[in-house]
Amino acid sequence: MGKIRTNLVYGNPRYEICAVCDVDLDAAKQMAELYSTIAFQDFKDVIQYYELETNLANNNDSNTANANLDAVIISVSTRFHGDYIRQAAKYKLAVFVEKPVAESPQEIEELYTMCESQGVPLCCGFQRRFDKSYVAAAEAVQQGEIGQAISAHIFFGDSPGPPLEFLITGGNIFFDLSVHDVDFIRWALNDNIASVYAKGTSSSDELRQHNVQDNATMMMTTTKGSIVTLTMSRRAAYGYDQRCEIFGDQGKVFVGNEFDTTTITSNRTGDHWSRLKNSYDSRFREAFVNELNAFVDTVLEQKPWPVAKEDVIIVQQVASAAKESLETDRVVQL
Amino acid sequence: MGKIRTNLVYGNPRYEICAVCDVDLDAAKQMAELYSTIAFQDFKDVIQYYELETNLANNNDSNTANANLDAVIISVSTRFHGDYIRQAAKYKLAVFVEKPVAESPQEIEELYTMCESQGVPLCCGFQRRFDKSYVAAAEAVQQGEIGQAISAHIFFGDSPGPPLEFLITGGNIFFDLSVHDVDFIRWALNDNIASVYAKGTSSSDELRQHNVQDNATMMMTTTKGSIVTLTMSRRAAYGYDQRCEIFGDQGKVFVGNEFDTTTITSNRTGDHWSRLKNSYDSRFREAFVNELNAFVDTVLEQKPWPVAKEDVIIVQQVASAAKESLETDRVVQL
Amino acid sequence: MGKIRTNLVYGNPRYEICAVCDVDLDAAKQMAELYSTIAFQDFKDVIQYYELETNLANNNDSNTANANLDAVIISVSTRFHGDYIRQAAKYKLAVFVEKPVAESPQEIEELYTMCESQGVPLCCGFQRRFDKSYVAAAEAVQQGEIGQAISAHIFFGDSPGPPLEFLITGGNIFFDLSVHDVDFIRWALNDNIASVYAKGTSSSDELRQHNVQDNATMMMTTTKGSIVTLTMSRRAAYGYDQRCEIFGDQGKVFVGNEFDTTTITSNRTGDHWSRLKNSYDSRFREAFVNELNAFVDTVLEQKPWPVAKEDVIIVQQVASAAKESLETDRVVQL
Amino acid sequence: MGKIRTNLVYGNPRYEICAVCDVDLDAAKQMAELYSTIAFQDFKDVIQYYELETNLANNNDSNTANANLDAVIISVSTRFHGDYIRQAAKYKLAVFVEKPVAESPQEIEELYTMCESQGVPLCCGFQRRFDKSYVAAAEAVQQGEIGQAISAHIFFGDSPGPPLEFLITGGNIFFDLSVHDVDFIRWALNDNIASVYAKGTSSSDELRQHNVQDNATMMMTTTKGSIVTLTMSRRAAYGYDQRCEIFGDQGKVFVGNEFDTTTITSNRTGDHWSRLKNSYDSRFREAFVNELNAFVDTVLEQKPWPVAKEDVIIVQQVASAAKESLETDRVVQL
Repeated sequence: MGKIRTNLVYGNPRYEICAVCDVDLDAAKQMAELYSTIAFQDFKDVIQYYELETNLANNNDSNTANANLDAVIISVSTRFHGDYIRQAAKYKLAVFVEKPVAESPQEIEELYTMCESQGVPLCCGFQRRFDKSYVAAAEAVQQGEIGQAISAHIFFGDSPGPPLEFLITGGNIFFDLSVHDVDFIRWALNDNIASVYAKGTSSSDELRQHNVQDNATMMMTTTKGSIVTLTMSRRAAYGYDQRCEIFGDQGKVFVGNEFDTTTITSNRTGDHWSRLKNSYDSRFREAFVNELNAFVDTVLEQKPWPVAKEDVIIVQQVASAAKESLETDRVVQL
Repeated sequence: MGKIRTNLVYGNPRYEICAVCDVDLDAAKQMAELYSTIAFQDFKDVIQYYELETNLANNNDSNTANANLDAVIISVSTRFHGDYIRQAAKYKLAVFVEKPVAESPQEIEELYTMCESQGVPLCCGFQRRFDKSYVAAAEAVQQGEIGQAISAHIFFGDSPGPPLEFLITGGNIFFDLSVHDVDFIRWALNDNIASVYAKGTSSSDELRQHNVQDNATMMMTTTKGSIVTLTMSRRAAYGYDQRCEIFGDQGKVFVGNEFDTTTITSNRTGDHWSRLKNSYDSRFREAFVNELNAFVDTVLEQKPWPVAKEDVIIVQQVASAAKESLETDRVVQL
Repeated sequence: MGKIRTNLVYGNPRYEICAVCDVDLDAAKQMAELYSTIAFQDFKDVIQYYELETNLANNNDSNTANANLDAVIISVSTRFHGDYIRQAAKYKLAVFVEKPVAESPQEIEELYTMCESQGVPLCCGFQRRFDKSYVAAAEAVQQGEIGQAISAHIFFGDSPGPPLEFLITGGNIFFDLSVHDVDFIRWALNDNIASVYAKGTSSSDELRQHNVQDNATMMMTTTKGSIVTLTMSRRAAYGYDQRCEIFGDQGKVFVGNEFDTTTITSNRTGDHWSRLKNSYDSRFREAFVNELNAFVDTVLEQKPWPVAKEDVIIVQQVASAAKESLETDRVVQL
Repeated sequence: MGKIRTNLVYGNPRYEICAVCDVDLDAAKQMAELYSTIAFQDFKDVIQYYELETNLANNNDSNTANANLDAVIISVSTRFHGDYIRQAAKYKLAVFVEKPVAESPQEIEELYTMCESQGVPLCCGFQRRFDKSYVAAAEAVQQGEIGQAISAHIFFGDSPGPPLEFLITGGNIFFDLSVHDVDFIRWALNDNIASVYAKGTSSSDELRQHNVQDNATMMMTTTKGSIVTLTMSRRAAYGYDQRCEIFGDQGKVFVGNEFDTTTITSNRTGDHWSRLKNSYDSRFREAFVNELNAFVDTVLEQKPWPVAKEDVIIVQQVASAAKESLETDRVVQL
């Protein structure tokens, strides 16, 4: 993700890359060379290089520590988010951070409070908010095109999917995948999740032995009375499958997939379409571009960032409830 | 449904309509006139007209009571199914009956036993079993095209939907709608339902006051470990919406909708497709035709009917479990 | 085609099949047995059987020769159309005939005149006129939905295609295939063909030696100034491909294909749809049903038949012009 | 187009923008500021700034005049192409130029010869060559997936379309639009155009008075015996419509359109898809990116550019033949 963000930042003339920072210094140097900038291993060195300490002392009332350094984009493992956000906030750098802001609601709360007290925006990315197709669907719902919302049906099929090792040692399917769609559906329906029932399955013995689910389904109710199903898979063999359907008493709205090509071959056996786009980088490329532009708008023009602290906290709570439901085989109320 | 069946029977040269029987005699007469046959109000009169009592006595070892009367097709309210089936069985008439065979598993059991002892087939209709698209999906799963099945996602949106009065006085959404897809998914996956969690909602105050759900979602697990979601609506504003998707570790298979026309208008605001077919009569017409041919094959050529007693009983049990889950907000094991 | 018509007539309660007539008497008998009617080899025997000669003499002023015999449906080789139509008209039987009514404009003219003088309708079938999707497209154009029509693009891919023998001894691609779409486009655009340029190709040496084109394209202009392309193939490997697109200054309207099933399999290599419907019998089944009902409306309720003599003659002239263009490699004006 | 190219060059780390040159100096300055480079009005000033004259004298045997200046991308009116190409070639700068290289085949020939003698590549852009979907279609044909090619059917609907003024004073529809698809089809079929018949229409009185066609259709034959239809429109109200279909005796391959979003709203009146992408910048964005990378490969790694001189010349000749056909209403042989 860091590579994708850097490439898009580079191509956006509203940005200038001041430095690339990576604990893997060689990786940082490679990136820096590619994008004609400088590399650091430690974020403290960036601070020193740009004399942020001094600038901060001298420009106490300024919004940023340095005229040339406005913001930091954080694309690292979640457990390091807190450290970077705290440093950035200290030096009055605006923050863009991958979801989730932190692992616990308490830390998320603390980080938002700190950023707020420092007067810097803390912008958590949820690309559906910036994707034309998802935005069009949310607007259709909000403008009454489907009448009263009754239910929603979501499919998140990742592709090409993480390696087995990551699954075993690392992430949880609810925390890693569900948050995007839970955030979207809360926003689209202007509603909240009231209950969650979740089941998960493991597609191999090894995953089963490690109690890791690579496929899972959540069935949720909302405060206003809609029913939402969300099925996730760590790997859809046919490509990156991200669909969302909202059904109402006057109609429905559906966000479909994007295909690798628009080429269709017809022969004796039928019509053959291309595979879906392989992954998020191609499917959500334009959304990522929009997201970066929105971040500039927030940093330079003080436009509000669409994802609020509550949104970030609640999606974690829903993921947590799903995990609990799976473990207890009970419906969990929120 | 009776009208549709009669029309299709009339157009099938393997059938000859011997009589139309309806408690509403005027309706029976209208149908009889349209299809050049005779009308009765009471099934006993049909028996008398064709001298089935006498024939039965004379031809004790024959398979049917009368050379000209082989079978009866029963399209009436479920609560009258038992009476008709018993009379038909008594006179050795093969039976085709709309789902469900009867309301209780006990009565279903009894009716199958009776028909069996009389040597007549009891054929319950589930049109998905005879629909090209559903059959192709089931075959794809069974032939391993999607690998190991992981989950299934089904949408049943009825159209144009029953009148409010029917909803309030009559049917239950799980019994009326879920059975088709539960039967299909059991067959396609060659698997059984292990647990059900269900929620339902009422789209108007009046329905709410009568505790009637016109929208509902079931989340099921199967014995082999798949997860199945099934969302039903009494009315999809955009037409008869019947979709089923089965996701596996090597791919997925999807049964889509049929449109009223294939005409697409493109203008300033986008591409506009026609509405979906409006109802089951157009969507499943060909399946109904196939079903009638299969019934002839069973009656005249002793081919086995694909829906067995167990299938009929189990789908009722699943609907019953869904109802219980909705009432208790608990997961119900089967 | 005769088989399809007979089956649909049988299933339509507004019709009663009085007789099946076929020069191949065995075929006639088979059909008669299947549809519970009587068989004849010679149409004269039908006339005699129903005593049409006598009835005609007795009921000089009546509209039909016999109360039980109203109409004849003619599905034979074009060269026999004239004979049957003349006999039918003589005995005041309404006529439905496959396109084209006759081979030459002169004979077409003569047959219409004769039927008119006898007071019987002569109804030539063009199924697009009765097909929901084509009708919806024509209506969209006529109601101004695409603005001013600019061009039209048509593809007629037959399937499974006639045997080589038929191609070599028999039909001409322009006369056999183009007439359907030329009739449709004239009707949809309410316009006339002004010029034709045509090219054809032979897909095998044998066809080339016999100077038979199994693929051809016509480029036409209309009186009002639209441009129409029409490509025909005797065989589309992927199924019956019948598409028509009309482009205007405010949009376009498109008639697409129907698929054998709505089942889509997604895997590593992409999304796989079913084959198109294999042939006209499944693709145009509903249109044929509508056509038969329209014929009853014309016979019994004197509703005008939508295809007029001029339509039938002009499409033949256009086919003739296309043939001439192909032979001369010149644009032919009409 | 210049703006799009500059933006994509800026975002490609394999490029460094040395200068922006525009006869409208203010425009050049705006671009230069946006992309952090310098602006010039006259290309001679670029030459002077980078001391190309001197460098050329000093490094006679070098491939380029200056280590920092390798290539020039020319996005100006066709009539200025020659001047820029000659200057670029003189100073050993590789050239990427929008199609067509020049207006006359003679000048195209001369410019290629000059570039060749100077040892610099002259790379003319045809984005279909770099577009995944078109490439997939060409490969399908070349790998025999559709069998023997029989015909091709192409639609080029521009959007949002040029202003009336441009149409009246400027371009010709065959030269401006047909060349892309003629180039593609020659490449995909590995075949040549043998004859052209073309018709055009004017959608308003004003255009008619100026003898300007904003809609046109070409019907072509190829050397190997395929038939190709190509319909062009200066404006498709429903978005940028670029489709190509190639039909063979074993199947067909189709390149379809891309939509603005994948959002579909279903309601009482049907299924409503988004508009097509509005223009070439969004539809062919990825192809333009690929094209720029291919240009780097040609400049720095001497990889051959896929569009040869002959390709560039022949598509102009075909456009010229189409114009002649329209003017004479005759088939023109090539």
